[in-house]
Amino acid sequence: MAIRVTVWNEYRHEKKNPRIAQIYPDGIHNAIAGALRQAGYEVGTATLDEPEHGLTDEVLARTDVLTWWGHMAHREVQDEVVLRVQRRVVAEGMGLIVLHSGHLSKIFTRLMGSSCNLKWREVGEKERIWVVETGHPIAQGLPEYIELEHEEMYGERFDIPAPDTLVMCSWFQGGEIFRSGCCYQRGRGRIFYFRPGHETYPTYHNSLVQKVIANAVAWVAPVGGPANNFGKKQPLEPIGER
Amino acid sequence: MAIRVTVWNEYRHEKKNPRIAQIYPDGIHNAIAGALRQAGYEVGTATLDEPEHGLTDEVLARTDVLTWWGHMAHREVQDEVVLRVQRRVVAEGMGLIVLHSGHLSKIFTRLMGSSCNLKWREVGEKERIWVVETGHPIAQGLPEYIELEHEEMYGERFDIPAPDTLVMCSWFQGGEIFRSGCCYQRGRGRIFYFRPGHETYPTYHNSLVQKVIANAVAWVAPVGGPANNFGKKQPLEPIGER
Amino acid sequence: MAIRVTVWNEYRHEKKNPRIAQIYPDGIHNAIAGALRQAGYEVGTATLDEPEHGLTDEVLARTDVLTWWGHMAHREVQDEVVLRVQRRVVAEGMGLIVLHSGHLSKIFTRLMGSSCNLKWREVGEKERIWVVETGHPIAQGLPEYIELEHEEMYGERFDIPAPDTLVMCSWFQGGEIFRSGCCYQRGRGRIFYFRPGHETYPTYHNSLVQKVIANAVAWVAPVGGPANNFGKKQPLEPIGER
Amino acid sequence: MAIRVTVWNEYRHEKKNPRIAQIYPDGIHNAIAGALRQAGYEVGTATLDEPEHGLTDEVLARTDVLTWWGHMAHREVQDEVVLRVQRRVVAEGMGLIVLHSGHLSKIFTRLMGSSCNLKWREVGEKERIWVVETGHPIAQGLPEYIELEHEEMYGERFDIPAPDTLVMCSWFQGGEIFRSGCCYQRGRGRIFYFRPGHETYPTYHNSLVQKVIANAVAWVAPVGGPANNFGKKQPLEPIGER
Repeated sequence: MAIRVTVWNEYRHEKKNPRIAQIYPDGIHNAIAGALRQAGYEVGTATLDEPEHGLTDEVLARTDVLTWWGHMAHREVQDEVVLRVQRRVVAEGMGLIVLHSGHLSKIFTRLMGSSCNLKWREVGEKERIWVVETGHPIAQGLPEYIELEHEEMYGERFDIPAPDTLVMCSWFQGGEIFRSGCCYQRGRGRIFYFRPGHETYPTYHNSLVQKVIANAVAWVAPVGGPANNFGKKQPLEPIGER
Repeated sequence: MAIRVTVWNEYRHEKKNPRIAQIYPDGIHNAIAGALRQAGYEVGTATLDEPEHGLTDEVLARTDVLTWWGHMAHREVQDEVVLRVQRRVVAEGMGLIVLHSGHLSKIFTRLMGSSCNLKWREVGEKERIWVVETGHPIAQGLPEYIELEHEEMYGERFDIPAPDTLVMCSWFQGGEIFRSGCCYQRGRGRIFYFRPGHETYPTYHNSLVQKVIANAVAWVAPVGGPANNFGKKQPLEPIGER
Repeated sequence: MAIRVTVWNEYRHEKKNPRIAQIYPDGIHNAIAGALRQAGYEVGTATLDEPEHGLTDEVLARTDVLTWWGHMAHREVQDEVVLRVQRRVVAEGMGLIVLHSGHLSKIFTRLMGSSCNLKWREVGEKERIWVVETGHPIAQGLPEYIELEHEEMYGERFDIPAPDTLVMCSWFQGGEIFRSGCCYQRGRGRIFYFRPGHETYPTYHNSLVQKVIANAVAWVAPVGGPANNFGKKQPLEPIGER
Repeated sequence: MAIRVTVWNEYRHEKKNPRIAQIYPDGIHNAIAGALRQAGYEVGTATLDEPEHGLTDEVLARTDVLTWWGHMAHREVQDEVVLRVQRRVVAEGMGLIVLHSGHLSKIFTRLMGSSCNLKWREVGEKERIWVVETGHPIAQGLPEYIELEHEEMYGERFDIPAPDTLVMCSWFQGGEIFRSGCCYQRGRGRIFYFRPGHETYPTYHNSLVQKVIANAVAWVAPVGGPANNFGKKQPLEPIGER
């Protein structure tokens, strides 16, 4: 059975800014969704302005992997929905892929526990994303690096917990570096943060960027390990009188 | 200058339960504080029922390391104070030592991002805490294992992010194991979770348990690395026309 | 195309000791190989006393994953073959599963860089292997723990580098714990160490033990990331006169 | 008592190349040794062409931390001495700091288990070393980044095991990035790899580079945890008839 992906997008920039609308006429979510369908996944979308941001219990129940793009309206995401997503990841193993400016989303900062803040600059400089962990499944089929002619800069210190695995690291023309492909296990769920994707550039139309996200979907997808079984337990071995 | 420690305690069990009061007549906090003073630290205490739980901005500003014991009243800890502590750890590098049932405290679950839930049993069985990372500073001066004749059992799955370093792991008489000494870096701050310390046993009077906590204070103490410098930045290298 | 596994076995105990021969009449390797064939893999075997220990360049070239069981004759394994296996793992991404007493094999200690020594006891005590990382692919389809009524004890300090991921940890009746399911990335290759499997017990006939090894084959199998491209390089960006 | 450091240097370039001799008239080792003495350590030196490369049992027995710079003559280092150093690190906890081209030294590749190979280019380009883990002791007193106007380039894939902690990452003018400050625990010993230090540049006269090495000495210094106690053990708990 195909992995079921829900591609979430804030979907505001594309509606307000004609230059962005030109790049993503159907929204960033549909650019990503199209690429993931091509990769063989079963894909739906959801956006901020839908009821419950399109992330009802029913939608999440049939979502194996959720991807998240947000930027200007992180605060408008309801806490209840954030907790629902967090629970689906931690307790039930839904995979989560957080993209670009999603680093400051409520869901990512909640799952990380740190500020997730960083340096940034928007002058359209060159980014070169180096694969440092060439043996990781997310690196499958990639070249040594991905070059993006125009991107926003994100620079260190990126205030995240050290990734369980650092798969990629970016070079920027203006002099910074950035941990740009970061793997995490949180509870039963897996999380991948992937840096590029500023709304004013056609980054999600880049076939290698699409390849990374498609690989990440497979990596974060639920695994089917033992269910949680918390609480009070009887001894498994005889203990005798204490 | 000595490291300044604030020992925080819920301080409810000791006031309500005469059996516990007998073990910790001045509260768990004063047992821990006494041991840390012996170890050469400058130590204050704070408890739940003080105003702002004893954790005002002023107190935190002069605290290098905070230790946390809580159990029955996690929910009574005000969110504002939790956020204040989280900020002191992540943004400013205050160290945090979370003890035993503090695993479900608001501050620990916020910093971890997962449920931090586990299995438990309270029959006074034997615990043997093995040092697995013998080259870690928190293992300094310890024997191969610490034996506690009577303790509450905590069992896996312990729903935490994989520790940056797993220093200790417990064996329980009833058949379980548990990752009992767990190191984390979160932002500029360091966190150590240490398992033993159920209120009905004299665990914090044990000299090896005291030694672990004293070692952990030194390990989590602030380091003095570069301050955060987030936000918009000018290029460090010439970029030219883009 | 099915993953191609070569199951390597020292194959001495089974030929010398009738009690062991009764448990593994065709050798430990054939017990493991049979289980992996059932799991859908394409499986061959190789043993110490074959020319080049059965691990010629040709055999390794068509091996995606190598499993390793050795005990009494680690020193008889030729250094040249060890280097060949190491190169296949590190440079080309062949997966490696090291079983039980293979912890002191030349190939494992070379890849780890530490002594890989441990405590042990052979009285047939009970082992209970707890899954601690329930969201890891090697935990797929497992219960919370695997109970082995009779096994050799291995105890900490296990002198290994901290695993990239600790998937399982064992409880022993005699009072020890042990990190028993350990994941590593080394170069382009992945390695899994799995503790149980003393030759005098029918451990490799246990269906859950077989399940772990089958899951591990999938996890360590080569990924197809970017090939190594070491050496002197021209600048990717203009540098000008220096 | 002061930490006792032995600074090891191949000491060939400085004797053969007048341009390098001008930068390091007393050898790279004495530049490093002088800086570490300033930092309060008790420092000796040793070089390749001394008997046993200056690393006799006696010298190692009184060495808490060994720093290693080598480049053109890695193969001339006797295997016996390499094994002696490895044993001192892994079994006894001596700290090891591997500098720059020491990445291909026998001692580093043995401890790592992978090829430790990389990309390189020697055109004197600019390097900017970013601190990514600002809360790590090795970052103490550092600014956000260290800028070296002229250095050799090292580029990814750097074929090392993922560091236990990645403290620093370099940006290069020519378009590459590199994991340049890498922490490892191996056995009872700690290892720090620090990238910069090509022999044709005055890198070890840079006060921030000196600061990193001085901080690293404190971090890798032996800790005094439980000694190894491998081998056959009696049960700690009653097992009964099996």
